[in-house]
Amino acid sequence: MSRAHAHPALHLGFTANELASSPYARFYNPDLAPLPEHVKEALQIGGQACELFPPVDKVGGLQTPGYWPVETGYTVAPDGAVRISVLTPMPRVTPAMWDWWFAWHGCASERYKLWHPRAHVAVGWADGRADLAYVGRTSMVTEYVGSSLFEVAIRFVPPASLGFDEQRLAADGEVVICARVGLAKVPILTGWLVHHIRPVPGGAEMRSRFWLGGDNVRPVGMPGVLGGFIGRTAYRLQPIKAEQVRELMVHDAQEMNHLAGFLPDLYAAFGPGAVASAEGGLRV
Amino acid sequence: MSRAHAHPALHLGFTANELASSPYARFYNPDLAPLPEHVKEALQIGGQACELFPPVDKVGGLQTPGYWPVETGYTVAPDGAVRISVLTPMPRVTPAMWDWWFAWHGCASERYKLWHPRAHVAVGWADGRADLAYVGRTSMVTEYVGSSLFEVAIRFVPPASLGFDEQRLAADGEVVICARVGLAKVPILTGWLVHHIRPVPGGAEMRSRFWLGGDNVRPVGMPGVLGGFIGRTAYRLQPIKAEQVRELMVHDAQEMNHLAGFLPDLYAAFGPGAVASAEGGLRV
Repeated sequence: MSRAHAHPALHLGFTANELASSPYARFYNPDLAPLPEHVKEALQIGGQACELFPPVDKVGGLQTPGYWPVETGYTVAPDGAVRISVLTPMPRVTPAMWDWWFAWHGCASERYKLWHPRAHVAVGWADGRADLAYVGRTSMVTEYVGSSLFEVAIRFVPPASLGFDEQRLAADGEVVICARVGLAKVPILTGWLVHHIRPVPGGAEMRSRFWLGGDNVRPVGMPGVLGGFIGRTAYRLQPIKAEQVRELMVHDAQEMNHLAGFLPDLYAAFGPGAVASAEGGLRV
Repeated sequence: MSRAHAHPALHLGFTANELASSPYARFYNPDLAPLPEHVKEALQIGGQACELFPPVDKVGGLQTPGYWPVETGYTVAPDGAVRISVLTPMPRVTPAMWDWWFAWHGCASERYKLWHPRAHVAVGWADGRADLAYVGRTSMVTEYVGSSLFEVAIRFVPPASLGFDEQRLAADGEVVICARVGLAKVPILTGWLVHHIRPVPGGAEMRSRFWLGGDNVRPVGMPGVLGGFIGRTAYRLQPIKAEQVRELMVHDAQEMNHLAGFLPDLYAAFGPGAVASAEGGLRV
């Protein structure tokens, strides 16, 4: 992630004008729910053993019933690479709502801001299109993590490319969002993110996973040994700090918990079943 | 703030002799109340977006009813400057009690220690006088913040000089304490502090604000461009660390919460209405 300077026109939150005119204003709530207890405990515990966090090439294992040793917590590996896990219980939510959300929010900053009103600044698709799809596309986001503003390129990839059985996901009513994370202004890939959403009684649960830094860093288009060497070397010059790891865990927990609180209502208002009756739903 | 070495005669807490002879001993409680839940959560959240914390030249906005986006939390701005906010609910307390406290405590270390018995070491007015006033005067304090001992010069300034409407403050029964914070041993200003106390049902609430480092740093008597350049350059050599920001937030929350617990009784015993009956009240 690259630290960015805010463009003057970019701003956190909805302006008075946006609150008055945005079709999404009624879903904009600048007050976040309190941090869930299990997230607070994970922050207090701090870094944990790397072996408790499977590597990204084993992420397909999320499809196996049950839980990983650490569902909420983080580790810093010997090479400085970071792995973060966050579990978010989501009553009333279905996995399909999140599949819709990841396509829908990327078209408009006003949508993106609903998700984390205290950190999300701007979003747009790299291809400039406004259709409802995300796999294979790159979302360019500007957001705070902690006190620092970052410009990030999120390249969504098919779950199968990371080892998920997509037919079985569909059969089980599960959704997995997978992406290669990188810098927006320079062609450097910095890590991976995966959000696995599966049905549970009364709703769904999201299991978020991040692998960042170390061997995950490499120049775009250089998946081989040389790219790995360049990436690791670059990372050693500016490794992720422990404080940043914690801030990223807080950020993910906050945004997922916050949106889950009103996602069913947002989906009813702007989701696939509501498009005909809500023209504003596609307004950018 | 400058790190100091404790003078041998300086000590934390009340000695056995002080406990036996000090007129304030019955108000000395070395046990602090637990950190309020909202402060714990702010510590767990960590740094937040700078845009959520108004700059010092907008501090007069505290007089507007309502709350700021973050009432308890901190940010580190792109230039490394720090902004900290702490909200302290204070049942039974009135704003006038704090106005009295800021003048009264500065005359004697035994009074100052009541406020934060685990961090406050010594206090005295730079002008050596012992009268009850603080605006326009400089309080020289020696206190721990975290594990480090600091000697700080706190130059109290009129609220109007920071943009407050003093007539309206008086009419609303509100009190604002404003000060320029600096090093005690060298003529360097490091930041600003503001405590806004307003009545709420059942008592009062204090909204503390700190702006430290970065552009807030400058040599005493050099408010212009050159002073700003010198200040920013000096600050880059020794910026405030994230750990110190958290420690300062804890320190403020502890001292305000602790004193608020017995300030009404202290005020009854030594405040303006009690001077005649409590000769010891003015003893240094």
